Amino acid sequence: MQLLDDLLRKRVFPADLERYCTDAMERAGLPRDAAAVSARVLATTDSWGIHTHGTRQIRQLLKNVRDGRIDAAARASVAAEGAAFAILDGNHAMPIVTACTAMELAIRKAREVGIAYVGVKRSSHIGAAGYYATMALPHDMVGMATTNTDPWMTVPGGKGPIMGTNPIAYAIPAGTERPIFLDIATSSVAVTKILAAKALGKRLPEKWLVDDAGQPTDDPTNYPAQGALLPMAGHKGYGLAVLVETLTAMIPGAAFLSGVKCWAFDIPDKANQGHAFLAINVGAMTPLAEFKARMDAMIREIKGAPKTADGRIYLPGEMEWERQERAQREGIALPDYVLVNLVGLAEDTGTQEALAAAFR
Amino acid sequence: MQLLDDLLRKRVFPADLERYCTDAMERAGLPRDAAAVSARVLATTDSWGIHTHGTRQIRQLLKNVRDGRIDAAARASVAAEGAAFAILDGNHAMPIVTACTAMELAIRKAREVGIAYVGVKRSSHIGAAGYYATMALPHDMVGMATTNTDPWMTVPGGKGPIMGTNPIAYAIPAGTERPIFLDIATSSVAVTKILAAKALGKRLPEKWLVDDAGQPTDDPTNYPAQGALLPMAGHKGYGLAVLVETLTAMIPGAAFLSGVKCWAFDIPDKANQGHAFLAINVGAMTPLAEFKARMDAMIREIKGAPKTADGRIYLPGEMEWERQERAQREGIALPDYVLVNLVGLAEDTGTQEALAAAFR
Repeated sequence: MQLLDDLLRKRVFPADLERYCTDAMERAGLPRDAAAVSARVLATTDSWGIHTHGTRQIRQLLKNVRDGRIDAAARASVAAEGAAFAILDGNHAMPIVTACTAMELAIRKAREVGIAYVGVKRSSHIGAAGYYATMALPHDMVGMATTNTDPWMTVPGGKGPIMGTNPIAYAIPAGTERPIFLDIATSSVAVTKILAAKALGKRLPEKWLVDDAGQPTDDPTNYPAQGALLPMAGHKGYGLAVLVETLTAMIPGAAFLSGVKCWAFDIPDKANQGHAFLAINVGAMTPLAEFKARMDAMIREIKGAPKTADGRIYLPGEMEWERQERAQREGIALPDYVLVNLVGLAEDTGTQEALAAAFR
Repeated sequence: MQLLDDLLRKRVFPADLERYCTDAMERAGLPRDAAAVSARVLATTDSWGIHTHGTRQIRQLLKNVRDGRIDAAARASVAAEGAAFAILDGNHAMPIVTACTAMELAIRKAREVGIAYVGVKRSSHIGAAGYYATMALPHDMVGMATTNTDPWMTVPGGKGPIMGTNPIAYAIPAGTERPIFLDIATSSVAVTKILAAKALGKRLPEKWLVDDAGQPTDDPTNYPAQGALLPMAGHKGYGLAVLVETLTAMIPGAAFLSGVKCWAFDIPDKANQGHAFLAINVGAMTPLAEFKARMDAMIREIKGAPKTADGRIYLPGEMEWERQERAQREGIALPDYVLVNLVGLAEDTGTQEALAAAFR
């Protein structure tokens, strides 16, 4: 507990966090390149302040490797391919590496033909889908990324978990303004927010759940043993989740709905999640400088619009960029639930000294 | 008023409604083919029960033609093109015709390369975006369609209208089950629902609006003179609306945000809306029969899931297909606000007898 107490009083720079996590994963037996890619994605996610999907997930990913649910030596392979698309077989390889491979392939194809879709089957948990969308930005492309998940969400008229929280993420380059970036679940809210309120004995701010009878409730007491998340905006979120399931699972041929097995549970089944990635090569379609000038003008018009008395208008992603800039300047104060997982990772891999040295 | 009273007691079959509307638009001076395409789209939309976006809009579209805001003799032209994309210049032609042309082009390109995007600039109101998504179904493709609109919606931290209601529509083929179909605004609700509650002097069932100070309200009394629609699901709907604006306007080079001029207002400016269409040729990516079997299995698992005591689970689009089947069997009882517009169209074009003859 001494190490945890120490880290709670310190901060870590994203580059140091990434380096430590790469080394720890390699010590745990991962190939160096798979460790490096996974660490980069998860440490970047922490730098955005999305800690639920950051480095805290490494320990559970490594447990999946030990349990044979993820094959750390495998690599994704091409199952079908055309000028503007590919279907990858994830071969149950390290899912974050697979997702990076898929998005890079979408970008490469979009460079040739303007837009490309890459679907992935036989994969697992990829962290925050948003990371892969942002991979399009240095190429001046629009990126989109989405994945299905095991079921946590009910649908209108139903009760109990039926669908995944099926996130939608995108990134759009701009000119002198910051890029636009969104990563949202199609459920009312992330599961972690429900569990946090429950741990504090609090009611939810809105009716984000249904109870055992399928009635909307703001009481998290019996969740997740009973009830399920509501879709965002009722039938609208449900409809978008069905689209995500189609793009990520029905087209690539991944598991769907109850066929997806939760990567975070202590079960032997492979997750068999599906993902979908889209890259749009804007510069092939319209002069890039004009597009960027239009994006800047749109961003400025939205930010300059009339506001509520205490209001500030954020563009999608603006909060994440601000947190990232601050993280690079001052380091990140990681929350306790992340540090507990990192200390556990250090104990599992005998890297306590390296972890302590990464924090300042 | 005698004609209106008569029609209120009768029903009209979709094919008869389409034939009458084609003839009336031709009488109003539209080229026969443009009239036929527009009538087909709008009568089909009525057959789905989406009457706000059906044939009631013809009279206002013709006013746009008379006022020079729409050029009925023009046709869309290709501004840029590649293997998997095209940008069309709508040339302010009949917008429904332009949208059909764009979706057909996306389908043609997707047949070759797997997926294709077609963006459109310098266009106007296209009715229900969902129609164009369904055009992919006979080709065993997934279709998506979206458009920006003039601003009706605020964003988190803002007040007053900043963005359009920017709808998202898709259609997905299945096997023996019905296709899946969704057409939603990214705002909390359609403007028409607010105005209907206001006309009845009722409160809204939820806080769908912000008032003049930007505070959420269920009171429609001062709308639309003051206040604006909220996005669906807060920052999530806002983020999706920004994505729609990018795909429909920022890439094609259409007007955006306050630059879009409402087609339904009595103003001289051309609307200059932008649209985006996507076609995904599933059979190029995965064996089509297997995809369709997976879709059927997903549909059956969702429909067979545990339900609330009084619940029935609908798939997206199931209500529209049921209404359409009933319309084809029994005819449609059009609501009064549609009939008022059709009677006005008949008076404008001297086609009262033909309108009366179309109803049974």
